[in-house]
Amino acid sequence: MPKKEIVDDWFRKRNERRLLQTADELFPLLLSNDRQALSSAITLIESKLSKDKKQARSLLLKCQKRGQKSMRIGITGVPGVGKSTFIESFGRYFIEQGKKVAVLAIDPSSNITGGSILGDKTRMEWLSQQESVFIRPTATGTNLGGVARNTYESILLCETAGYDIILIETVGVGQSETIVHSMVDFFLLLMLAGAGDELQGIKRGIMEMADAIVITKADSGNEKLAEKAKIQYRNALHLFPAKKSNWIPQTFTCSSIENKGLDEINHTIESYFNLIQNNGWLFENRKVQEMKRLDELLNEKILSEFFMNVKNKEKFELLKVDVSLGKISAYQAIESFFEIH
Amino acid sequence: MPKKEIVDDWFRKRNERRLLQTADELFPLLLSNDRQALSSAITLIESKLSKDKKQARSLLLKCQKRGQKSMRIGITGVPGVGKSTFIESFGRYFIEQGKKVAVLAIDPSSNITGGSILGDKTRMEWLSQQESVFIRPTATGTNLGGVARNTYESILLCETAGYDIILIETVGVGQSETIVHSMVDFFLLLMLAGAGDELQGIKRGIMEMADAIVITKADSGNEKLAEKAKIQYRNALHLFPAKKSNWIPQTFTCSSIENKGLDEINHTIESYFNLIQNNGWLFENRKVQEMKRLDELLNEKILSEFFMNVKNKEKFELLKVDVSLGKISAYQAIESFFEIH
Repeated sequence: MPKKEIVDDWFRKRNERRLLQTADELFPLLLSNDRQALSSAITLIESKLSKDKKQARSLLLKCQKRGQKSMRIGITGVPGVGKSTFIESFGRYFIEQGKKVAVLAIDPSSNITGGSILGDKTRMEWLSQQESVFIRPTATGTNLGGVARNTYESILLCETAGYDIILIETVGVGQSETIVHSMVDFFLLLMLAGAGDELQGIKRGIMEMADAIVITKADSGNEKLAEKAKIQYRNALHLFPAKKSNWIPQTFTCSSIENKGLDEINHTIESYFNLIQNNGWLFENRKVQEMKRLDELLNEKILSEFFMNVKNKEKFELLKVDVSLGKISAYQAIESFFEIH
Repeated sequence: MPKKEIVDDWFRKRNERRLLQTADELFPLLLSNDRQALSSAITLIESKLSKDKKQARSLLLKCQKRGQKSMRIGITGVPGVGKSTFIESFGRYFIEQGKKVAVLAIDPSSNITGGSILGDKTRMEWLSQQESVFIRPTATGTNLGGVARNTYESILLCETAGYDIILIETVGVGQSETIVHSMVDFFLLLMLAGAGDELQGIKRGIMEMADAIVITKADSGNEKLAEKAKIQYRNALHLFPAKKSNWIPQTFTCSSIENKGLDEINHTIESYFNLIQNNGWLFENRKVQEMKRLDELLNEKILSEFFMNVKNKEKFELLKVDVSLGKISAYQAIESFFEIH
């Protein structure tokens, strides 16, 4: 199919799905493992129409009550590192164990015609044909806060629909990986060997968030380089302070085309989940994540209300100029704004 | 002198200094390099009395206008790493070059009787006897925001008094090192060799902030271990993304008692300042720091105003409980609070 037709087709299907959109209709279908309903439910929570928002809230409240039993795994890495290929093999392992896998892809750099929506069908060919797999890109073009919210609520919907493994995939070049990290239990960083790490564009702080680093493409003569990179990263990870989960981050090499290294990674992730289930970190961390999200959202909200007031906005902009010119310090600006005497 | 008398003496002197406290009196004395006046000025900005606050604001406005030419260097490391000994030798190098050095010590864990105030005189014996050195601990017991503000304004006062090198020393175990990082041009991390890095209690993210890592106590048979640690840290630092300053973080070993390695470190810092003066980062970074501080202060201020409203506080606390119990999500809590329908 030519590009344009695929897009039109996607929109048509999307509109069809939207005919079914009340919480009361969707919820039982979600529970009965209806993939179409899950898709509709995600479209519903992504909608900006106020009638949809009301239904979305009602649906989410039902889902919230059901508890959230799944392994939430974040996967990040720069374009070209082989995320899709990795997820194909990675997901297959769980499918073969009889598990249900959902893949939520966040790609803030893509847009609807050129980006992940067209890609996902071909990117993960085997996975996308499986009955027990659900693949969904996030609606793009929205702001990061919107992406975060949609992704988080999509996780809840997938969990309600009985998915055991939720993979959240993102490109490790912006802020989306921090968002992903704030909603997963395990954070996996894919890296290329010998690419000159500063060239890989990995943002500061990402390495410290990783629970595992996987050097991809350890094949076709690249094995030694990959092994060397693995040791380098392992040594570097040892220099970081211990994780609150008591987990010691691991490093691996893998080849998706030769199907090497995957078993080891999967076993490690299983040990990880055993560990954090037993020591309580799984529950504790999700609670911490949620409380932190609450603080961030409150902050965002009252800040945006503050700037919605035109007088505030204008007055503050003027002070900002003075600070940027070094005329007054930030402290002086705040005092002057709030007229603290 | 017994401990109690030293403390009493310190308070008595402090009270004497406070007799002189108008901005108009202090400012010319600052410019004429009167150490006593600098000390009084810092006491003034630390004061919580509203009459002092007014004078402090007036003084800072005068200082702000004079520009800020100095090298602001942050030094952090866990207790026992040898910060004081390092600063003794480090400061000496600049003194011998005819520079004026100010040392501002932040130690949030100390208190007035047992902490840094008693310590500073003995900790840096040689430095504390030099005419061109000013040593000052921050008033303790205040909150971190207060510490940040006092330290930042003390920097401005020291700069007005003509100090060329401002060393800001802190313990790398809490949040104070992030505050220090936000107000310096160069950030130096002191580490011990072979202490098992997770045992050193260095907080996550600190390594990435470092412009240089110095392994201390490379003497008395500890040389090889220190060299090994240096290489480890160097390799680890290479894995981090490039710094915006274009600076490549350096690693060193040093022995303060054998006076080894100091020259190299000092030369490196000089090259660093040459680099950032030439590529504009010095100015750019200070501006970025100040704008970021402005955002943070605004945030803090409107958040504290929000919670000053008892109704807000109570309503939000209730929602917080629901979120912590998993009854509703953070998103739902915010919507419910602000009655978004």
